[in-house]
Amino acid sequence: MPAAAPARVAEVVQREWGEGLIRSWNTAGWIDMPQRVGDKIARLIGAGPGEVVVADSTSVNLFKVLSAALDLSLGQPAPAGVRRVILSERDNFPTDLYIAQSLGRQHGVELQMLGHEELLPRLRAAAPGEIAVLTLTHVNYRTGRVHDMAALTRAAHDAGALVVWDLAHSAGALPVDLGAAQADFAVGCGYKYLNGGPGAPAFVWAHPRHASRAWQPLAGWIGHAAPFEFTPEYRPAPGITRYQCGTPPVLSLAALECGVDTVLAAEPLGGMPALRSKSLALSRAFSHLVQTRCAGHGLSVVSPQDDALRGSQVCLARDEGSYAIVQALIARGVIGDFRAPDVLRFGFTPLYTTHTEVWDAVEHLRQVMETGEWRQARFRHRAAVT
Amino acid sequence: MPAAAPARVAEVVQREWGEGLIRSWNTAGWIDMPQRVGDKIARLIGAGPGEVVVADSTSVNLFKVLSAALDLSLGQPAPAGVRRVILSERDNFPTDLYIAQSLGRQHGVELQMLGHEELLPRLRAAAPGEIAVLTLTHVNYRTGRVHDMAALTRAAHDAGALVVWDLAHSAGALPVDLGAAQADFAVGCGYKYLNGGPGAPAFVWAHPRHASRAWQPLAGWIGHAAPFEFTPEYRPAPGITRYQCGTPPVLSLAALECGVDTVLAAEPLGGMPALRSKSLALSRAFSHLVQTRCAGHGLSVVSPQDDALRGSQVCLARDEGSYAIVQALIARGVIGDFRAPDVLRFGFTPLYTTHTEVWDAVEHLRQVMETGEWRQARFRHRAAVT
Repeated sequence: MPAAAPARVAEVVQREWGEGLIRSWNTAGWIDMPQRVGDKIARLIGAGPGEVVVADSTSVNLFKVLSAALDLSLGQPAPAGVRRVILSERDNFPTDLYIAQSLGRQHGVELQMLGHEELLPRLRAAAPGEIAVLTLTHVNYRTGRVHDMAALTRAAHDAGALVVWDLAHSAGALPVDLGAAQADFAVGCGYKYLNGGPGAPAFVWAHPRHASRAWQPLAGWIGHAAPFEFTPEYRPAPGITRYQCGTPPVLSLAALECGVDTVLAAEPLGGMPALRSKSLALSRAFSHLVQTRCAGHGLSVVSPQDDALRGSQVCLARDEGSYAIVQALIARGVIGDFRAPDVLRFGFTPLYTTHTEVWDAVEHLRQVMETGEWRQARFRHRAAVT
Repeated sequence: MPAAAPARVAEVVQREWGEGLIRSWNTAGWIDMPQRVGDKIARLIGAGPGEVVVADSTSVNLFKVLSAALDLSLGQPAPAGVRRVILSERDNFPTDLYIAQSLGRQHGVELQMLGHEELLPRLRAAAPGEIAVLTLTHVNYRTGRVHDMAALTRAAHDAGALVVWDLAHSAGALPVDLGAAQADFAVGCGYKYLNGGPGAPAFVWAHPRHASRAWQPLAGWIGHAAPFEFTPEYRPAPGITRYQCGTPPVLSLAALECGVDTVLAAEPLGGMPALRSKSLALSRAFSHLVQTRCAGHGLSVVSPQDDALRGSQVCLARDEGSYAIVQALIARGVIGDFRAPDVLRFGFTPLYTTHTEVWDAVEHLRQVMETGEWRQARFRHRAAVT
């Protein structure tokens, strides 16, 4: 939790809501928050001012941009006989695949899911117009492996496809440059490396060359060109604002802004490149320490050893007991995630995770394995959203 | 703002988020909040436990249920030559019309917008299967006029149509009985008469006979039958849970729960019927006082005088200056809304609005009109979301 969050949220609740009431939409700038926080996130992902809004959840935003990308792509003529597909990765985060399946069914387009290594060859071998949209999560949620955004975007464009990037495990975790990659659309999560709090709203970006071209189907009033004229016909706002839909959740947005501000506060100290260096040092140390100090316990490192291919997380796997080990660590205060079927995931937020904590975490893991305490505890398998 | 909100939100921020971290998804019950708060709202709208979830915004939820209703309705065979339509009211809240237009375009179905009085005759004269879905806001946002939910639902069903109700200005404002009306789908707003705070999440209901029948297109992971199995194929959860999509915004949800609890706290004192009596007494008094004490100032009462036809608001209109008058009142602490083109809207939350405040509000209005202070002030026309 950002240190600023309790006071800021209390201010929004007590002063802006409790005293200002609906006046605060104007006097406290609530109505502009999606753009204001969006502009701040833009600085972390290689986007310009006015190109990002905060809205809804990652899943909902993905629905918007993937729908827009499909409309744009399928609107282009394709050679006769070409069967168009949405291309994604089999190990993509499930919500991304579900949304793609839903829109694929609606547009009569199949979702094709391939392995990480098969994507570039598939794009290079594709018939012109065959691949309508490539949709990928930049950093894999289960392995921490990073896609080469620039190379995949280029290959997709060469194949006539548009590209939608999900930055859930990238924004605030490593430098992202959507502009340099000439990407088409992106979405991302507020509650991971942006530290926005539980279920924080998500963000959405469209390249300026597309932002005003496509409609998105969640045509809500906040995305209207003139929402307070209350006209019965929908007229989308110019630019990224049309990717808003309903009224934004102000309390959650205020907490997200504290999280984003905390990441941006690192700018005078070197910003994302400096954070990336520390992140890699932390994950490199963790990975090395697990392999040396926890050797012989059946734990393998799933995440890439090559720094360039690794996000800000290290994932381990074990044939047996992964869930119980994660729970035993949580009981000791080392909070990671279990990800089915067998992954132990450890995220490193370079803003505040220290090398000492990395050492201590591995020491706890070593003790959990050596004492076998994970076998004794009765750890129920329950949900955790991260 | 509910009196409980500051302490509850502070607890969620500092203890559940700041100390519990992601453990709170389980230990603080975050993961069940959409259902828990949904069950509470169900008691206010004539729905059963397990039939309502809190999720996303009203606009996004409307997209889900209207899409599901269209799928179900258009899946039924219709006589040859029948051109199917979505039926709504011309003066419906714009977001409802925009979403209907968007889905109508997608499904190749026209949106037909009629006046309030034309709806029942249109339904009764419709060819079988002609009207796919009737979608209405129960209480009109601009006039406060109430639709007869039971009669319109019956007429729609007789015509072979499904009905989607938007309860934005109904839930917590007057008794609603979706079950007795045998309605099909409903959505509603958390930040009006439920006092959930700025941009509070919305709710969604599907009649149990439909809830597990239709898919909704926002097929996000939180609506999956087993979200934590992370399987690549979407399988919707049974019942209303499939109408969730992404991760819920916990801070905003916690504030909404305080608001809903406040409305439910009136149950031992007579609940919604008692609140309705007070609401009508307040709006009747306001209407009467405006007509007597502000006579001669060109203000007309737009809302129905008949109690049975009026929601929990009174709307006035004036040929000139409506916006400036609202602003002059806000400057005096009487907070209403301007609604284009000429409406002054005053909402009465029977939980805490007193008869004395109604008297004082009219007295301020009288002074604003008699002194002409609304003419002098320079009131900029800006946004207000309510």
